[in-house]
Amino acid sequence: MEIKLIKNVLEVNERQSEENKKIFDAHGIFVCNIMSSPGSGKTTLLQKTIPVIKERSRVAVIEGDIYTTRDALRLKEFNIPVVQINTGGGCHLNAAMIAEAMKALPLKDLDAVIIENVGNLVCPAEFNIGEDEKILIYSITEGDDKPAKYPLSFTNAGAIVINKMDLAPYCQVNIDKLKLEINQHNNTAPLFMVSALKGSGLIPWTDWLLSKIENKSR
Amino acid sequence: MEIKLIKNVLEVNERQSEENKKIFDAHGIFVCNIMSSPGSGKTTLLQKTIPVIKERSRVAVIEGDIYTTRDALRLKEFNIPVVQINTGGGCHLNAAMIAEAMKALPLKDLDAVIIENVGNLVCPAEFNIGEDEKILIYSITEGDDKPAKYPLSFTNAGAIVINKMDLAPYCQVNIDKLKLEINQHNNTAPLFMVSALKGSGLIPWTDWLLSKIENKSR
Repeated sequence: MEIKLIKNVLEVNERQSEENKKIFDAHGIFVCNIMSSPGSGKTTLLQKTIPVIKERSRVAVIEGDIYTTRDALRLKEFNIPVVQINTGGGCHLNAAMIAEAMKALPLKDLDAVIIENVGNLVCPAEFNIGEDEKILIYSITEGDDKPAKYPLSFTNAGAIVINKMDLAPYCQVNIDKLKLEINQHNNTAPLFMVSALKGSGLIPWTDWLLSKIENKSR
Repeated sequence: MEIKLIKNVLEVNERQSEENKKIFDAHGIFVCNIMSSPGSGKTTLLQKTIPVIKERSRVAVIEGDIYTTRDALRLKEFNIPVVQINTGGGCHLNAAMIAEAMKALPLKDLDAVIIENVGNLVCPAEFNIGEDEKILIYSITEGDDKPAKYPLSFTNAGAIVINKMDLAPYCQVNIDKLKLEINQHNNTAPLFMVSALKGSGLIPWTDWLLSKIENKSR
């Protein structure tokens, strides 16, 4: 009984995810679902990414948080559409939440929607929300042993951004070991080593994102 | 229907948690449930805590991970009972898992059980597992804005350990702001500022833990 219901929840979510994707596709909008642990720098990365993306495409953001509108407020200065979803305790965004948020977005006037998921390395990876790509942000401070411990987030990712590389010299982390283990779980996703805070290593990442956006809207 | 089932799951868990606690109490065993985001240093903290605790009490560890036995292996050198639970995708430990793990522990010969939960700042806080105290480990690298964004983990904690203080000088983090916000969500839990990696600030933490263990076994 229990298992059946959980399956139903995932099925209902998957159907809504497909509906969302159809609508995004019809508008030629590239959608990415950004996932990570809490405090790995998703919003800081967006603060450095949006000004670059904005030059060449029309972008909106959906911010997912359990509580507060803090992340949305940090993007205020960019003068782009930002919708904040508060899950009120929920550990991940689901497709129904995105369907609601889409109603508040000017879809006809957009090339890309960046969705920042709830900070959680486990649950968000199980729920498709209508995205073209899942993107994993991983802080180097989380160590070199996590891909095998949290495999779904790594396996599902269309791109992986290793953030806070400026802190690497002060952490006990073996970057070669981390890269090798990521490769064992996902050998197709491009890997970007950046420091969002310092603004370093970002050009390959924003180039990749722009190429994805431009391929979709073409 | 859906809501009813979720309520049942929590009720069943709560009953099992009470059963677990009765058994731990009957043996005078102090039990703590250690929670945090992935990579905040729970296992490293245990590696520095266990040698001190072990001097004065008989301690066992239950390690919770989605996959791998890596964390359990890191505690091998201490020659104490360690049980590894793999949730196989599950985002938190529940009381039934602990009931199973208890069967593998020599309860008659223990004063304390330290349970390391799955790395997740959201879901573990919702499930009691038979513990006396929930303990939140928080890495300073996660920033100063998280208590209001993830309130349950902070509110529920009987003690809060801020780890990786050695990295604070390299992060854009306002420690006074963080302390103030923690205090708004929990003004009773003691707050320990430590670097598990460097071994600094640990004495007040291990003293607190030992006093809890000794109060219970008395």
